[in-house]
Amino acid sequence: MKLKILGCYAATPRSMTNPSAQVLELRNRLFLIDCGEGTQMQLRKQKVRFSKIDHIFISHLHGDHFFGLPGLLSTFKLLGREKELHIYGPKGIKEAVTLMLKVGDSWTNYDLVFHELESKTSELIFEDDAIAVYTIPLEHRIYTNGYLFKEKLGERKLNIEEVRKYDIPVCDFQNLKNGKDAVLEDGRIIPNTLLTDNPPHPWSYAYCSDTVYKEDIVPLLQNVKVLYHESTFLESERRLTGKTKHSTAIDAATIAQKAQVSQLILGHYSTRYTNLDHFKAEAETVFDHVHLAEDGKEFQF
Amino acid sequence: MKLKILGCYAATPRSMTNPSAQVLELRNRLFLIDCGEGTQMQLRKQKVRFSKIDHIFISHLHGDHFFGLPGLLSTFKLLGREKELHIYGPKGIKEAVTLMLKVGDSWTNYDLVFHELESKTSELIFEDDAIAVYTIPLEHRIYTNGYLFKEKLGERKLNIEEVRKYDIPVCDFQNLKNGKDAVLEDGRIIPNTLLTDNPPHPWSYAYCSDTVYKEDIVPLLQNVKVLYHESTFLESERRLTGKTKHSTAIDAATIAQKAQVSQLILGHYSTRYTNLDHFKAEAETVFDHVHLAEDGKEFQF
Repeated sequence: MKLKILGCYAATPRSMTNPSAQVLELRNRLFLIDCGEGTQMQLRKQKVRFSKIDHIFISHLHGDHFFGLPGLLSTFKLLGREKELHIYGPKGIKEAVTLMLKVGDSWTNYDLVFHELESKTSELIFEDDAIAVYTIPLEHRIYTNGYLFKEKLGERKLNIEEVRKYDIPVCDFQNLKNGKDAVLEDGRIIPNTLLTDNPPHPWSYAYCSDTVYKEDIVPLLQNVKVLYHESTFLESERRLTGKTKHSTAIDAATIAQKAQVSQLILGHYSTRYTNLDHFKAEAETVFDHVHLAEDGKEFQF
Repeated sequence: MKLKILGCYAATPRSMTNPSAQVLELRNRLFLIDCGEGTQMQLRKQKVRFSKIDHIFISHLHGDHFFGLPGLLSTFKLLGREKELHIYGPKGIKEAVTLMLKVGDSWTNYDLVFHELESKTSELIFEDDAIAVYTIPLEHRIYTNGYLFKEKLGERKLNIEEVRKYDIPVCDFQNLKNGKDAVLEDGRIIPNTLLTDNPPHPWSYAYCSDTVYKEDIVPLLQNVKVLYHESTFLESERRLTGKTKHSTAIDAATIAQKAQVSQLILGHYSTRYTNLDHFKAEAETVFDHVHLAEDGKEFQF
């Protein structure tokens, strides 16, 4: 699992900081999560292949999370895209984004499939043979979802030494990977657990931005491998979290600790702070495995 | 007159090239012309004071000329703007841009005044005591206007040595600047031309992008001081100008030469070209005073 941070700052982009956008690579699929202004330039700088993006997930309709979308869709067209593109985001996104293209007579030459979200409870919104994506209802000034990306449990791994001992034919290998016991020609049954190892523990990634501290998301996040949770403020600005519906680093760490996730990434920093180390230090008072998102940083897990 | 080029490349922004946007400074007023994605980051990099921008002129509704507008308007709000802001652009701009703000419940806390344009003939769209702005109807794939910024003729300059000779009181100076003759106490009349010099020749700047070669704009541009004319292509790609409704460097230079402008700035280059010098070389076969726009470049005239 790889995660490229394209932008991780709150509110307005500045010359050196970019608004929210990141690319998750999981089982050879690329998912773009949020798309603030300038995301397409960041994708180029980070050398992400545009043609590999088929699914875009928008958390909410504040500008710093989706104003880069019309430009990215136009660029897909100019690059000759033909594959369909799926966009998941709050109701209203379709009309606003397509109108931006329509006034310029700039229709896409590929199918643009909007999946508009309204539910206030978590729902499965994407699924293929390897990955499932669920919404994480958040609490912000407007309707907002986080997204939970869950790798499905893979096949069991053949223990090839044991398999050879019993002279099991190749045509039976898939059954073993699927968990079936082996039946030998003489009728003996060899239990699957003798012939295969457990599949690798599936990866999972949760993106939670923007939101005030919301404890009822904890069950959804239980045992997630990597959690990105917004931390707009430090404790010194906690008084601002209620009105702005944002979290502090300690809020993020508390969610991570309660949900027993493996790793926490902080991001969506207010641009008032110049030293990000304070975010890590404050979060580490609550939770051990804290990382700082930075524009252009790539995490490999 | 100062002109800051924020972006001067066609179509899709890349990591090192920006779409159309520029800032004209004339008589202490800042006019933003076009606003492609990332314009607000370019404004910051070029250290332009956001609060000095009160008028934005959009040529047409292709993304590379206006997708930066919703983000810029949001940032004005976050910066606490209270002054009204005027936006001039093709009909449709108001609905598209305001919908992008509306879906995020992000109303501006300042008055946003849209001046939507539909006319196919040149019209006066802005005027104050020092500047007048006219549209320049262009021919592109969609409805497009260039903009002509004309400084008004200033006051005559006092020739203070002559003025003192006749002992003219200070309270009459404004009349002299306005061109009136002086009437002395003894009844003598001193002609204004003896007491004042001509005001400086007024500056004028014409922005023409995007357009195919369109000779009927020449009368509007007659004797303009500085002309920015798009030159998307070199002669080797002339075959593309008809379908895309863009110009070559020689087209731009021909307009400059026919309109007898003082200086020509080329821009809106297709990103297929890596060496801009060819644009200058081709244009100079037709017209002498050719400059190349470059992202981040400032012209002072």
